[in-house]
Amino acid sequence: MSSFLGTLFRVATWGESHGPGVGAVVDGCPPGLELDASEIQRELDRRRPGQSALVSPRREADRVEILSGVFEGRTTGAPIALWTRNADARPEAYAEMADKFRPSHADYTYYAKYGIRDWRGGGRSSARETIGRVAAGAVAKKLLRARWGVEILAYVLRVKEVEARVDPEAVSLSQVESNPVRCPDAEAAEAMRRTIEEARKAGDTVGGAIECAARGAPPGWGEPAFDRLEADLAKATLSIPASKGFEIGSGFAGTRMSGSEHNDLFYAEKGRVRTRTNRSGGVQGGVSNGELILFRVAFKPVATIMRPQETVDIHLQPAVLQGRGRHDPCVLPRAVPIVEAMAALTLADHALRQEALRAGAFPDRAGGV
Amino acid sequence: MSSFLGTLFRVATWGESHGPGVGAVVDGCPPGLELDASEIQRELDRRRPGQSALVSPRREADRVEILSGVFEGRTTGAPIALWTRNADARPEAYAEMADKFRPSHADYTYYAKYGIRDWRGGGRSSARETIGRVAAGAVAKKLLRARWGVEILAYVLRVKEVEARVDPEAVSLSQVESNPVRCPDAEAAEAMRRTIEEARKAGDTVGGAIECAARGAPPGWGEPAFDRLEADLAKATLSIPASKGFEIGSGFAGTRMSGSEHNDLFYAEKGRVRTRTNRSGGVQGGVSNGELILFRVAFKPVATIMRPQETVDIHLQPAVLQGRGRHDPCVLPRAVPIVEAMAALTLADHALRQEALRAGAFPDRAGGV
Amino acid sequence: MSSFLGTLFRVATWGESHGPGVGAVVDGCPPGLELDASEIQRELDRRRPGQSALVSPRREADRVEILSGVFEGRTTGAPIALWTRNADARPEAYAEMADKFRPSHADYTYYAKYGIRDWRGGGRSSARETIGRVAAGAVAKKLLRARWGVEILAYVLRVKEVEARVDPEAVSLSQVESNPVRCPDAEAAEAMRRTIEEARKAGDTVGGAIECAARGAPPGWGEPAFDRLEADLAKATLSIPASKGFEIGSGFAGTRMSGSEHNDLFYAEKGRVRTRTNRSGGVQGGVSNGELILFRVAFKPVATIMRPQETVDIHLQPAVLQGRGRHDPCVLPRAVPIVEAMAALTLADHALRQEALRAGAFPDRAGGV
Amino acid sequence: MSSFLGTLFRVATWGESHGPGVGAVVDGCPPGLELDASEIQRELDRRRPGQSALVSPRREADRVEILSGVFEGRTTGAPIALWTRNADARPEAYAEMADKFRPSHADYTYYAKYGIRDWRGGGRSSARETIGRVAAGAVAKKLLRARWGVEILAYVLRVKEVEARVDPEAVSLSQVESNPVRCPDAEAAEAMRRTIEEARKAGDTVGGAIECAARGAPPGWGEPAFDRLEADLAKATLSIPASKGFEIGSGFAGTRMSGSEHNDLFYAEKGRVRTRTNRSGGVQGGVSNGELILFRVAFKPVATIMRPQETVDIHLQPAVLQGRGRHDPCVLPRAVPIVEAMAALTLADHALRQEALRAGAFPDRAGGV
Repeated sequence: MSSFLGTLFRVATWGESHGPGVGAVVDGCPPGLELDASEIQRELDRRRPGQSALVSPRREADRVEILSGVFEGRTTGAPIALWTRNADARPEAYAEMADKFRPSHADYTYYAKYGIRDWRGGGRSSARETIGRVAAGAVAKKLLRARWGVEILAYVLRVKEVEARVDPEAVSLSQVESNPVRCPDAEAAEAMRRTIEEARKAGDTVGGAIECAARGAPPGWGEPAFDRLEADLAKATLSIPASKGFEIGSGFAGTRMSGSEHNDLFYAEKGRVRTRTNRSGGVQGGVSNGELILFRVAFKPVATIMRPQETVDIHLQPAVLQGRGRHDPCVLPRAVPIVEAMAALTLADHALRQEALRAGAFPDRAGGV
Repeated sequence: MSSFLGTLFRVATWGESHGPGVGAVVDGCPPGLELDASEIQRELDRRRPGQSALVSPRREADRVEILSGVFEGRTTGAPIALWTRNADARPEAYAEMADKFRPSHADYTYYAKYGIRDWRGGGRSSARETIGRVAAGAVAKKLLRARWGVEILAYVLRVKEVEARVDPEAVSLSQVESNPVRCPDAEAAEAMRRTIEEARKAGDTVGGAIECAARGAPPGWGEPAFDRLEADLAKATLSIPASKGFEIGSGFAGTRMSGSEHNDLFYAEKGRVRTRTNRSGGVQGGVSNGELILFRVAFKPVATIMRPQETVDIHLQPAVLQGRGRHDPCVLPRAVPIVEAMAALTLADHALRQEALRAGAFPDRAGGV
Repeated sequence: MSSFLGTLFRVATWGESHGPGVGAVVDGCPPGLELDASEIQRELDRRRPGQSALVSPRREADRVEILSGVFEGRTTGAPIALWTRNADARPEAYAEMADKFRPSHADYTYYAKYGIRDWRGGGRSSARETIGRVAAGAVAKKLLRARWGVEILAYVLRVKEVEARVDPEAVSLSQVESNPVRCPDAEAAEAMRRTIEEARKAGDTVGGAIECAARGAPPGWGEPAFDRLEADLAKATLSIPASKGFEIGSGFAGTRMSGSEHNDLFYAEKGRVRTRTNRSGGVQGGVSNGELILFRVAFKPVATIMRPQETVDIHLQPAVLQGRGRHDPCVLPRAVPIVEAMAALTLADHALRQEALRAGAFPDRAGGV
Repeated sequence: MSSFLGTLFRVATWGESHGPGVGAVVDGCPPGLELDASEIQRELDRRRPGQSALVSPRREADRVEILSGVFEGRTTGAPIALWTRNADARPEAYAEMADKFRPSHADYTYYAKYGIRDWRGGGRSSARETIGRVAAGAVAKKLLRARWGVEILAYVLRVKEVEARVDPEAVSLSQVESNPVRCPDAEAAEAMRRTIEEARKAGDTVGGAIECAARGAPPGWGEPAFDRLEADLAKATLSIPASKGFEIGSGFAGTRMSGSEHNDLFYAEKGRVRTRTNRSGGVQGGVSNGELILFRVAFKPVATIMRPQETVDIHLQPAVLQGRGRHDPCVLPRAVPIVEAMAALTLADHALRQEALRAGAFPDRAGGV
């Protein structure tokens, strides 16, 4: 496995659904940052199940503990170890899965890759793995805000066919958190809620899209050729379970426009270079341009459905699997803080990389570094 | 900058549009692979301008030279250095750009980041940078085919609103190469050609989508949590200039389906686990499942248009930029081998990583590793 | 900080001396390896204080817990999280150090680098950080033994001027563990013990050298040009606190010989290429040659002495520091398992890297891969 | 192979002794640095053969070309590709080696690892590989000097039993370059010259030690736990062919002292924390302390001797090898710029890493960051 990510601001995550706990180690966080467990807890609370009728009713307190790297309320520069203990483990709920592969889950591919069947709730492929991401991402979010004034905010943009209207420049966290769907368009949120409820009653599931905005990033973040900012944002968010697509700015829709319609014209405002439109999504040539960074992530409908499904078992015999247990009919509301976390980890890493470049550079007098 | 990519099969690229040349260093290619410059040249020929009326009429021979790592026709395990000399440099064509930022190009962000204005044809942000990718990717393609029987094939799926119908399981290289658009659907290819021609005549440009299929990959490639196969494919392809989106399998469209429609049911065939549908795009839980790996990349309309555009100069003064020079009205035909190259680099790296894991493992007797 | 190490077999460590605990995350361990906490505990028990009169009398149970990555007694391929809780924390013993820099410790440099003074027992620079290394190294040792039959054994070769005579080909773990000095030469061990005791009584400290042998490694481990096996062994062991030098094979002494004396002549034995001498220390051209891998690490005398020392405080005022607390007069006996751990982490990583290369290669019929 | 090194300031090298050339790609060099091929050439000229009667008489002009990354005399932030063409290739001189393993060379291990025999002068294991290191290191040296005022200077400290007396704080480049041995102690240099000459006449070879000093590095460079400055310096220099040992500060000799003798006492001078002695070699706890960084590297006697030696061939048959060709009786004079280059690459990388940390930090008012 590869559970390590990042160049300067780095994270390692660990843990599976039915072991003692899940956690993360954040390495490379600069020293002196005020950090309190409650700030991390707030993000974990947005991710955990049991928040509303829309998501899994499992009761997991997911209390985070900081095990290292913080002294007298501030980071020391040492690695920050974070973890939450697992609770409410009911491996027996997964007994049927011990030798059947759940369709569109990681059961078969993990078995093929590792030759080991850890059937307890998906083991490492369980969504509980994302707790480490959210905890680590909370540190990155704090650093981005405190050091560079960058705010990251994601929200549910679409559930199945219900699409919200959102002004990404203006939307606020309180709007996002005003309903259990985490969609800042109240009307759309209600329609999404109904769509999710209907799916749940039908033993079915739905997917959709999350949009994520990062405000306040200066020009210069991103490292072409390969570590372009959008490339690393895509990698980070497509490493989230159930994600199937990523697009930045105009994305796939923008490919239906002409160049003359699509180009973002430059103008100057208050001594800054600005663009009149933001089809670039805040990134040009792989580097942030100072506009709002805006991207979307597609999440497929949840694979665990409460209906019988054809499959095979580990002996390659045909089998029927009946979904049981407590599952989300729609992963998007809980995925919002995960997308934010992955965006924050990526941006914090690139922020530090650009600071290194800037500190080492000999800019033109006219220059911008 | 970060022009290094990969964990075991690694590449470093270098070069800008108007320097002496562009190239790549491939490190970690296993020894004994038969490799000839002509195989690399074939891929570069698909990328170079001047192939047809649809693309830039620049004449660049782009002859590749192998400088190291090959002895008596086979790789030695040493780094393979590849390069092509630049020719036909006309920096004067770019004189106007010396102090104006081209809209939706990297001009402004590179200036903001590096504090240096290398205006000669975009410098490092030029599409010529992709020569190193294609050359390195040709080595990866060869290795994948020779060692694991994996074939990678990309094609233009859509230009603006013209979408092709392609059977990704059956499409062949000769079909892709049968027309200058690199679209295997002849009828759609002709409509795409007209769309591109119209844009060119109007001094405008168009974008679209490329689909890429990898056939023959065994189950087990991909390293969760962070280096999931689709995450690394997304990073690799979204590091290509002008790309704006990535989706695997059902992608964004699949998010409009119910879980019961979307799930890929398992069955057994000839001792192998198969799926009845392939909405997963060959990857489940971040790991290949043995089905066709299938993804799409969105490319925006080319930013250089032959029309006047508003912009600012490096002194933040308003300016008008008149596009000149020899540019592609549509980047997609030439981007096809680049997408293949980035896919190949990613898959070769993951193939080797999985071989390491397998060689170190102690599988169950029943196990699949 | 950079607390992440390795390419395929990777480790992240965390924790400081007076926080809740210290630990490690091992990523990339292949699946199916039988692993029990007791095996890890055995290594930690060799590292912990309070084992004998020779080392610090602190009582730290250092009970390891496995938090993830092991299911039904075997590794799953998922990251293995290991930790021990800290106990016996007496930060007051360090009160005097709160604003004085201890000579030849990391106090000043950490303060200069991080701008934060975590004075509790050295914080992250404490030797307790090495618990994570030893725990992770125990996993690597197990893998090396189980998968490749490689045994790693270190021992104290010299304490100050007392040098042992050891046959590195024949020495056994039980010989090493037969005395508290961890020197397999009983006579020398007794002399070393007296040297350490004398230092302790004088409030002083001593250093020396540890030799480490790895038996059974096949030819082919090591990745020139930069990741030569000896280079990575040096990096790994010189990252241990108090280490000051590394040499492989004939090392510094060998530089006093002529080439004609120094060269290891080849001969064939039972179908294998062997060398008549092993001045190379088992590594030639950065790659293992199948002979015993043998290197030495220099450890300086412990910096904490029980005598007053001149220093300055954080306000740059002259100060006198009186060593207090429970410290080792000689770090070498406890450093033995740490050296083994770092060697094991390095070799396990290189073993997997070579397996990847071998699996991807097309060897000559006559070839050796 | 692994020919890539570094985290932020990175280098990839390529090339073998008898191919078209050898080179390097430097990635991550900050923009705006004035850089001229002549500065790089000067370092290569110190490395090349034929400089004096003491070293190999081969005539290799080794003219460096800059292929990218420099525009109008300054770096642009893009990767800097450097190469020199190979000349004077006489592979026939190596014909005898085509199937015999040269003792204490990489011939056997490369064959065992890669299964391929590139016998032309050692192929990738040839010392010509170090040209890429020296060229890349010249860029790093320039950056260190221009941006942080750091000067790196190495010299031959010992040849066989002849040891120089050098004051590392005061020694100058012109002293080092004043004689072909590159030893700043004229008397010792003459004795070394005689020692080398005698070895050459006897068809034999000698080794010794190089000392390297870095002046002007500020406190704070180095990234514990694993990327301690001395650990990375050791890795970098022990990746040089023929190196066998590394020690920093008091090194192996310091382990014979008591702690009370060995500790570097702190005092304050002109607002800076200084140490009265420098047994730490400028690094404490893995982090630079502002004193002179001082380390030594052991180089074994050259393996190629002009005498018959027993060996085996690739068919495991006994053979006798008669050294021929033009070889150095002592590698040290030419290794001096290589050691400097590896030190420079390491320090430049750590300088940038520390700048990133500092830029992201929130130091105490009293703090030192």
